[in-house]
Order: sequence, then structure tokens, then C-alpha cells
Amino acid sequence: MKFCSHCAAPVTLRIPEGDNRPRYVCDACHSIHYQNPNIVAGCIPEWQDQILLCQRGIEPRFGLWTLPAGFMENGETALEAAERETHEEARANVRIESLYTVFNLPHINQVYMLFRARLLNLDFGAGNESLDVQLYQENDIPWDDLAFPVIKETLGLYFADRSTGGFRVHVGDIERLPGAPRRYRINMLNH
Amino acid sequence: MKFCSHCAAPVTLRIPEGDNRPRYVCDACHSIHYQNPNIVAGCIPEWQDQILLCQRGIEPRFGLWTLPAGFMENGETALEAAERETHEEARANVRIESLYTVFNLPHINQVYMLFRARLLNLDFGAGNESLDVQLYQENDIPWDDLAFPVIKETLGLYFADRSTGGFRVHVGDIERLPGAPRRYRINMLNH
Repeated sequence: MKFCSHCAAPVTLRIPEGDNRPRYVCDACHSIHYQNPNIVAGCIPEWQDQILLCQRGIEPRFGLWTLPAGFMENGETALEAAERETHEEARANVRIESLYTVFNLPHINQVYMLFRARLLNLDFGAGNESLDVQLYQENDIPWDDLAFPVIKETLGLYFADRSTGGFRVHVGDIERLPGAPRRYRINMLNH
Repeated sequence: MKFCSHCAAPVTLRIPEGDNRPRYVCDACHSIHYQNPNIVAGCIPEWQDQILLCQRGIEPRFGLWTLPAGFMENGETALEAAERETHEEARANVRIESLYTVFNLPHINQVYMLFRARLLNLDFGAGNESLDVQLYQENDIPWDDLAFPVIKETLGLYFADRSTGGFRVHVGDIERLPGAPRRYRINMLNH
């Protein structure tokens, strides 16, 4: 951010009076421009003992597999966002059943909210941002070709819960550690 | 939003190519300025059979009672945000125990994430944005003087769950209906 979106004057990054962290502040019209985390909403579409995965057709992680999910929009609920993203990315119709995982990704200012969902029929296919969409049995999940750690963690919890017959909400943090190669620290809040 | 925050040129509100909803678009530098819902994180601080409420010292709802909660910031988790807000508004130290309610408020583009938390000691008091901070027994909760519907719903669920001995995560939507007086539609996702 370089310019004020209200009056076009240059902004400066400083701590406003009464605040405790740097913000983009306009010294001309006194606007403070807050920047806050975004919600990524999505779901695990279930069909009998299979789940639906999408092969990404866009960067990042082109060609890798993921659950349908995307940025929640103003004016909608997280459930509506998850259903909409599932329709956009997998051309699939789902009914959201329950919240399943909430993961904080503080290094990229995102909070994932992933729901369990029932796939309503087999009329699905690749949306604009997908190369392919497929139903997977647990034994066929492409664990080494999943797009994001949050997807791998969610699917790991899902199949573990399914094997014990008890699904519950899981809340945790996935934080990327500094340096290369990519490593992550995962902390779960016990319920 | 009137001007591009990257180049200061005027923005126009239109649907970008390949998108399906209006965005603020800069025709000079081709930036698209997305606007997305914010997360409000907070908690129910528990001390024996009492919970801690804050009396608001700022608008909106000056003088009414609420749970400590506020906008989640970039770079932190929802848990950290809930702990920070509790410290800022109630000068209280808590340990977050579990996610309790997630409420979508689509009419104001907010998602509330409220946690159950353990108050670590009785060293609390009014922060800058509070008039007063008090522990309340269930029978003394000021139901008619609560600041927001999301707080009333969360506390109603909390005491109902507590009376049955079983706390679980609740997810729902609270949407303001058009017109006056203020009325809300509440939909809960069954778990």
C-alpha cells in the first residue's frame, strides 16, 4: 500500500495514537487502513466411502491435489463460501454437514475453515481453476501430491476419525518455519 | 474506496474478466482490490461458576455488556487474538481451552470465533475500551443489556450446554433482517 484509497495522498506506515501496531495511515485525510487475515472456506465432499479432490490448474501448486476451497467473500457465510467454491472448482453440488477443521496459518494471514459435506450427485467435473476432479478411496489418496499442509493435516485427521467412528471439530495452527526447505510447525488445540 | 492504493489513480467498481462479482479495479495499473470478511476473535473467561463480562466504553453499544473480543490481526492466530483482546479489554490473563462458537454475520462481513477460556487469576480490570469488568453468575447475567446478538446467542448456548454437562462446538449464522426495529434471523448448523 502506497497511497490512500480515500484521497490518493501518500500513506505512511506508523503506529497510530492509541494503537499498538503499525498501520498504513493517511496524514492528509487521517484514514487508517487496517489489514486483517482472510478466511479460506472449503469442504470435504463425501460420496459413500470416497471423497472428492481437485487437481489444481493454477499456481501456486499447479498439478497438485487439494480440497475445494477459496477466499470467503463479503456478504456470504463460510458455509455458502464453501458450497460456492466447491461448485466453482469441482462443478459439484454439496450440502454442508458440519464444521470439521479450523487452521490458523499466521505466516500468510489466513484462517482455513473446512467443513464435512455430502456430495449430492455424481454430476461433477473440472472447473476453470482445476485440471481434473476425482473421487478417491482412502487407500488411493495421493499423499505425496497434496497441494498444501493444511489439506494433508485435514485429510489425516479425517481418516483417523473415520476409522474410530467419531468425527469432532479440530482446531490448530500450521506455521511455516524460517529457511529452506519448507518446514512447518503444527499445534493442535485439544478438545 | 476511490483511489488505487498502489498507483493513486481512480478505481472503478466492475466485474473483472474471469470473475463473477464487482471489485474495485484500477485501469491504470490493473490492480484488483479485493475486500473480504474480518474475523472477530474472543472468549468466555471462566472462573469457577462465573464468567467475565466487559461493559463497553466505546461505540457502538456504549454502556452495554459483552465478552472480550476484537478484530484478529495479521500475523497472529485466532487463539492469540482472543487472548490479546481479553488482555486489552479486561486486563485479564486467560488460557484458551477450546473453540466454542463460530457465527457468520454476513450483513456486516464478520465471522465471530469465540473460545472457552480459563481465567488464570483475579487480577483484571477495565481496559481502555471498557467502563467496567465484572464476574457474573448465570443468574445475574444482564440479558437485557448485552451489546450484540452474537453475545446473547453464545451465552445462551453456553449455559444450556453447561446445565447438561456437555460442551460442543456450535456453528451458525446471525443475519440482520431489513427494516426497523432491529430483527435477526438465526440459523444453526446441526452437529
